[in-house]
Amino acid sequence: MRARLLEATIQCLVDAGFAGTSTTLVSKIAGVSRGAQLHHFPTKNDLVVAAVRHLYDQRAAEFEAAQRDLPVGEGRTRAVLGALAEYVTSPFFTAALELWVAARSDEQLLAAVAPLEIETGRGLHRIAVDLLQVDETRPGVRELVQATLDLLRGLGLANTLGDDSRRRARILDQWAQTLDRELKELG
Amino acid sequence: MRARLLEATIQCLVDAGFAGTSTTLVSKIAGVSRGAQLHHFPTKNDLVVAAVRHLYDQRAAEFEAAQRDLPVGEGRTRAVLGALAEYVTSPFFTAALELWVAARSDEQLLAAVAPLEIETGRGLHRIAVDLLQVDETRPGVRELVQATLDLLRGLGLANTLGDDSRRRARILDQWAQTLDRELKELG
Repeated sequence: MRARLLEATIQCLVDAGFAGTSTTLVSKIAGVSRGAQLHHFPTKNDLVVAAVRHLYDQRAAEFEAAQRDLPVGEGRTRAVLGALAEYVTSPFFTAALELWVAARSDEQLLAAVAPLEIETGRGLHRIAVDLLQVDETRPGVRELVQATLDLLRGLGLANTLGDDSRRRARILDQWAQTLDRELKELG
Repeated sequence: MRARLLEATIQCLVDAGFAGTSTTLVSKIAGVSRGAQLHHFPTKNDLVVAAVRHLYDQRAAEFEAAQRDLPVGEGRTRAVLGALAEYVTSPFFTAALELWVAARSDEQLLAAVAPLEIETGRGLHRIAVDLLQVDETRPGVRELVQATLDLLRGLGLANTLGDDSRRRARILDQWAQTLDRELKELG
């Protein structure tokens, strides 16, 4: 029942945005009674923060699994960028974006969202370092990984108003080459 | 009076978000009668789209002026990135972000916002090409400029929940070096 409520919340955030999401609507979509919903998640903020955290945990586990399917050597960097790009164009990114933006002007939501944003940001950084198999102790490498993740967030944002996949593929083709050259340069 | 309404709208979008912005609140902040406000901008959508366009026009003019103050030769790339970063951490970016995200789940707003998003995106791309003084006919250069702008949008997003200026400065230091080396490589 908990999982059904969280999945309905993500669907609601993606379809109707944060402002259009309500605990009543989520209960209805999930087919769960209001009483049961209130028992699990007393407030809208509890519900939306738990839903984004739940989805993040799922995505992190998927990255662990994807690790095994990525090519080794040539083509790996581009494949890693492709895997990370799937995340910024997924319902997780859309739902998280709705939360981050709503939290900007809602102090109570911000108090719940800020720790989650830090945690997911660090988690994704660690995942990117693992997938790219880079050594962050070399000067500049950490910043290149951070830039890669910020670039991906920008690409996620650019994809929210329409399908940006062709432009994104060209940018990531170029960025994979740049990243490989730069990592060699910094090595 | 028109300018006062548009500036009040930006203030309202930045402080209260899209959901918290209303034509009544904007009239109040601007000190303009409801009748006069409705005469200039009949709907909330008219008001918010005009406000973001107005601010974009101002920023574009500022970039034209900034052009003259940028160093030539060494240090130029980093200075250009700094100027562009100011834009993604300004009220313009915050107000535009509120609109883009709200438009995702609001068809009527999307119809007004989509052309503005394309126009401002193209405008900023042209500004970046001019400031960086690069030749986009060389293969890969266009994609690097686009990646730079998407990186900046990602950095803008990362700055919405708290001050990210120190991390941003380190990333842009590294990005400036990367960009200079890559542009030489692609040349």
